[in-house]
Amino acid sequence: MSFNLSDENGNIKFVNNTNFDITLVEGGVCAPHGFKASGIHCGIRASRTKRDFALIVSDVDCSAAGAFTKNVVKGAPVVLSQKNVSDGHARAIICNSGNANTCAPNGMEIAHGMCRLAADKLGISEDDVLVASTGVIGQPMSMEPMEKGMDELVSNLFDDAMASKYAAEAIMTTDTRLKEIAIEFELGGKNCRIGAIAKGSGMINPNMATMLCFITTDVNIAPEILQRILSNDILDSFNMVCVDGDTSTNDTVLVLANGLAKNDRITDEKSYDFEVFSEALRSVTTYISKNLAADGEGATKLIECNIRGSISIENARKAASSVIASSLVKAAMFGADANWGRILCALGYGGAYIDVNKVSVDFASAKGVINVCKNGGAVDFSEEKAKEILLENYIAINVSIGNGKYGATAWGCDLTYDYVKINGDYRT
Amino acid sequence: MSFNLSDENGNIKFVNNTNFDITLVEGGVCAPHGFKASGIHCGIRASRTKRDFALIVSDVDCSAAGAFTKNVVKGAPVVLSQKNVSDGHARAIICNSGNANTCAPNGMEIAHGMCRLAADKLGISEDDVLVASTGVIGQPMSMEPMEKGMDELVSNLFDDAMASKYAAEAIMTTDTRLKEIAIEFELGGKNCRIGAIAKGSGMINPNMATMLCFITTDVNIAPEILQRILSNDILDSFNMVCVDGDTSTNDTVLVLANGLAKNDRITDEKSYDFEVFSEALRSVTTYISKNLAADGEGATKLIECNIRGSISIENARKAASSVIASSLVKAAMFGADANWGRILCALGYGGAYIDVNKVSVDFASAKGVINVCKNGGAVDFSEEKAKEILLENYIAINVSIGNGKYGATAWGCDLTYDYVKINGDYRT
Repeated sequence: MSFNLSDENGNIKFVNNTNFDITLVEGGVCAPHGFKASGIHCGIRASRTKRDFALIVSDVDCSAAGAFTKNVVKGAPVVLSQKNVSDGHARAIICNSGNANTCAPNGMEIAHGMCRLAADKLGISEDDVLVASTGVIGQPMSMEPMEKGMDELVSNLFDDAMASKYAAEAIMTTDTRLKEIAIEFELGGKNCRIGAIAKGSGMINPNMATMLCFITTDVNIAPEILQRILSNDILDSFNMVCVDGDTSTNDTVLVLANGLAKNDRITDEKSYDFEVFSEALRSVTTYISKNLAADGEGATKLIECNIRGSISIENARKAASSVIASSLVKAAMFGADANWGRILCALGYGGAYIDVNKVSVDFASAKGVINVCKNGGAVDFSEEKAKEILLENYIAINVSIGNGKYGATAWGCDLTYDYVKINGDYRT
Repeated sequence: MSFNLSDENGNIKFVNNTNFDITLVEGGVCAPHGFKASGIHCGIRASRTKRDFALIVSDVDCSAAGAFTKNVVKGAPVVLSQKNVSDGHARAIICNSGNANTCAPNGMEIAHGMCRLAADKLGISEDDVLVASTGVIGQPMSMEPMEKGMDELVSNLFDDAMASKYAAEAIMTTDTRLKEIAIEFELGGKNCRIGAIAKGSGMINPNMATMLCFITTDVNIAPEILQRILSNDILDSFNMVCVDGDTSTNDTVLVLANGLAKNDRITDEKSYDFEVFSEALRSVTTYISKNLAADGEGATKLIECNIRGSISIENARKAASSVIASSLVKAAMFGADANWGRILCALGYGGAYIDVNKVSVDFASAKGVINVCKNGGAVDFSEEKAKEILLENYIAINVSIGNGKYGATAWGCDLTYDYVKINGDYRT
């Protein structure tokens, strides 16, 4: 495993864990054939320097799939997107930042209004538009800035790299880094692409995050298969990200697949192409997940917890999430303190089965690996070496919890002064 | 409800919610008849100014009850105290701070050694000694300082107020305030007393906290009844305290009841005396719970979440705990930000049943009450007034979640820079 968190451009490094070739390409959600995007400032946010209104459109009808927050309190856009994606087809995604459109009396009206605006201007059906909102909960929201900005949003639709970046920028809230990726791979001799934009970065917890991720692909795939792949994918990607333990009301992952790569349509769960597409998608969602964690509110480090030796995958996920979500572990990572007792403590209360007397804990980073706990107890280790390892910006906590065959990985970040600062007065 | 957090001495104010008289008395765990306590520095901690070794002893045999952490990773003292309390009898509690005696290879040996030391010096049976430890997990521990200090610990056993304070001081870790109380009330014409000392203040979460609470009483009560009362009590007291979401490995609540008040022995769950003792104990555990929350690591405020309108008590507890545990709610309280959307969000993911369209949220403090959410949505309110209310050091978040008849209360604190600072490098 490589511990270089960032590539030469300062972006989180993409890792290809598949056994086929994946090439990084420019263009984000506009990289796949037949997709355009746009992002403008329409005035939902006061600051004119921050884009707040985004649109992604496919030239042709798409197979569509979605995954949404499990919070009982759901934003109106979540409710409407769940409905609109349920037939497996869509052509556009419209999204605003600056207001979550959640717990607002006119929430459904606004969500419908946003879909209708896009549908009217694009000449498509309203229920082929998916919608998402992010920002403060419970604030009154008006259609006015979006109505005024809609012409500009549509006239700025382009299929180039800049258009994807503008859309990515428009969905950001407290994110400090734009989150975007596009990859190219081969399916039955055809070049296929997957692109994605996303935003974090607080109110993020297993079972999705205040996170939005919009994924485009030109792969030809049946909608029910696409939905199955996505539903399975999030269990080990977005659901394994935890910034602060708060599961948002608005989490949304949407995938549009327009088929323009002209590969043989994927309709069979047992086919080779199904495997390749699943793994290619996973490489994208893993990349985005790491990005979300590394850019968690106030974060200075990406923390990765790798569980091994578990009696099942579900159990491993539970254990990994419990370690990553622990405020005390997070604070210790901020302080580069090899306080492994807190890791055992988090394993112990997380509800996962662990064989306490067989637990071992290693810390790893670009500076090396150090074993700090073996057979559930202390081992002699160099505090100096541990400090050196933990001062890096990408830390792995590798934990073996028994003799089982299963593992899982969760991603999170450290708990810092800046998290408190950012969230002490988010609304002002 | 009174929002004066502190009394004239700067201690958390005691509230009597029973319909009988309760008088605050001096003396902590030494206030009930026939109890002595001691607290010294024996050298587990380097700093000679901090006591680290405590002992509480009853002159006669006691009915004993205990409640312990649900963490799968348990400190050795927890395992041994569970065993020693299981016969319903005990006479002494021995406790050290500075080392949790958890995940240490010689953990059981040390825990047994501590009980044996006390038993030998006091001339009682080893299995009548209960033991607890608090401090860092996974550090090697030696009997040596305790062996050397035992004579001093026993020769400093006194039944006065200072002795209780020394014991309370000796069990503190990152606590900033000593936690102690004693009350007097009447049972069948006899004056009875309950005293308690406790420590917090990080690694605190529902299902107990890194908290130790030792309770003494001279009430005459059958052990199985005492255990039943304690097990029931913690559901609405200690289990409703959350500082940081981390359930400790060492949480321990112990009650010793020596019967010297000479009331008619409580043996019947349906008796009036059973009710009176239960409520008196609850007033003590509620006081201690509020103390633990208010003195949570880095805390500047006590936050209380009162849930009403729930379909069951269990459901209300779940909802209250979810709000109190939310990092985002805690950070908003630190910033005196009336960001009620985060409260709805926390209610939504906490697993409690809520009738979203009927949720209302009020903030209350010594500065007044303000309604910020009604029928699950925004209401117009004065941000200025809300800020004034939230700038106080004792805040209630009053939430109605539907038309049910049940309620519950949870206590916590704000999330501050100091929490991060304290936990960024706890071990040094």
